[in-house]
Amino acid sequence: MNITVLSLFPPMFDGVFGQSILKKAQDKGAVTLQVVDIRDYADNKHKQVDDYPYGGSAGMVLKPEPMFNAVEAITKGKQPRIILMCPQGERYTQQKAEELAKEEELVFLCGHYEGYDERIREHLVTDEISIGDFVLTGGELGAMTVIDSVVRLLPGVLGQEASHVHDSFSTGLLEHPHYTRPADFRGMKVPDILLSGHHAKIEQWRDEQSLKRTYERRPDLLVDYPLTKEQSAFLQTLQREKLDS
Amino acid sequence: MNITVLSLFPPMFDGVFGQSILKKAQDKGAVTLQVVDIRDYADNKHKQVDDYPYGGSAGMVLKPEPMFNAVEAITKGKQPRIILMCPQGERYTQQKAEELAKEEELVFLCGHYEGYDERIREHLVTDEISIGDFVLTGGELGAMTVIDSVVRLLPGVLGQEASHVHDSFSTGLLEHPHYTRPADFRGMKVPDILLSGHHAKIEQWRDEQSLKRTYERRPDLLVDYPLTKEQSAFLQTLQREKLDS
Repeated sequence: MNITVLSLFPPMFDGVFGQSILKKAQDKGAVTLQVVDIRDYADNKHKQVDDYPYGGSAGMVLKPEPMFNAVEAITKGKQPRIILMCPQGERYTQQKAEELAKEEELVFLCGHYEGYDERIREHLVTDEISIGDFVLTGGELGAMTVIDSVVRLLPGVLGQEASHVHDSFSTGLLEHPHYTRPADFRGMKVPDILLSGHHAKIEQWRDEQSLKRTYERRPDLLVDYPLTKEQSAFLQTLQREKLDS
Repeated sequence: MNITVLSLFPPMFDGVFGQSILKKAQDKGAVTLQVVDIRDYADNKHKQVDDYPYGGSAGMVLKPEPMFNAVEAITKGKQPRIILMCPQGERYTQQKAEELAKEEELVFLCGHYEGYDERIREHLVTDEISIGDFVLTGGELGAMTVIDSVVRLLPGVLGQEASHVHDSFSTGLLEHPHYTRPADFRGMKVPDILLSGHHAKIEQWRDEQSLKRTYERRPDLLVDYPLTKEQSAFLQTLQREKLDS
């Protein structure tokens, strides 16, 4: 997969793109990550990329030309998904990550400060994505977030280090608790079941813990979840306990 | 405000903490940002911070000792909010950003790969935050996201560059469109109203566009929104138009 990011602050990406899974994914050839400075496509000698908003107000607005010029130079007639990171966009989810992971090429546009000219949204982008109901200084962190979540799904990237099969949201439920050594840390103990060696019982405990955590914290995720007969029975026990308490 | 982040990949933060608003906020003395390597608090000579999970499965689990040791060394008896970034956490919102912006000190714990020992969650953290229903390689991008959204709210940070008063979610509605020069870009024109100079009409247009965008994209935000009489009337017009179309 080829990913290009358009930003006014390319050095913001150095740390995240140069470490951990994103670095390994590039080293393995699973993805190329390129960050382009929008200023390089300003068509005026002062490299001005923003200007005052029509109608007045505080803050500056990203001009349309540099963004259109940059996208056209990068895509060279191809038609990849052009993703604008913005608070008004579609809420990002794991399903969207899986959808984007199937693409061969992605382009991310990162606004900064007050906003960007509306014509960029209307005539240049194919997807508007928001990572949540909060306001960031720019689109860069959103783009890094989407890129991290997509690249880790690409074939061969996670390798043996970790698997995404049991991830929260990939299974549709929140993850069960994890424990590692020591079995007793300052009096805080690992549940006996995990030390028992009974693999079938351990799997059942994990499944129940996953279900319990989802029921307690994110019952909305259970609405469309295809429960097995055992899971339904366990959930009914939880509901009775809640009513009794 | 003092912010400390515990991570296995401190260099991930270099780019984001060294640019734009987060850099300026540090230069102005509004915030100190410190990243601590969890490995420095491993109590074994191999600096091992993770181990196999009890009960088996792919992936490694962050051990409890290094995280407890690091937090105790940093907080030195004070009791700041200790925030764990994880998919099972409370969904992050602008309201939470405003709440965290009132604190004097914040500590962020970033897990990585498969997970972290459950005793960290149960006995060390005060807040569990998720930035959304998607899976990331680690907690680092979530921590950067929360930190960016909090620091920009601190007094004096945004200065004249931008204001957060009209932000999406700060007002409770999505933002209206922005336009800047040129008035005609390749035949794509700025709405006449914004060129009119009628400030009262421009304000009304912006308010209506903000309401219209929220109605079309995020009607859930309108449920608790305190509409004025004019806004209610405009919304009814939109609803009628939708029914007629």
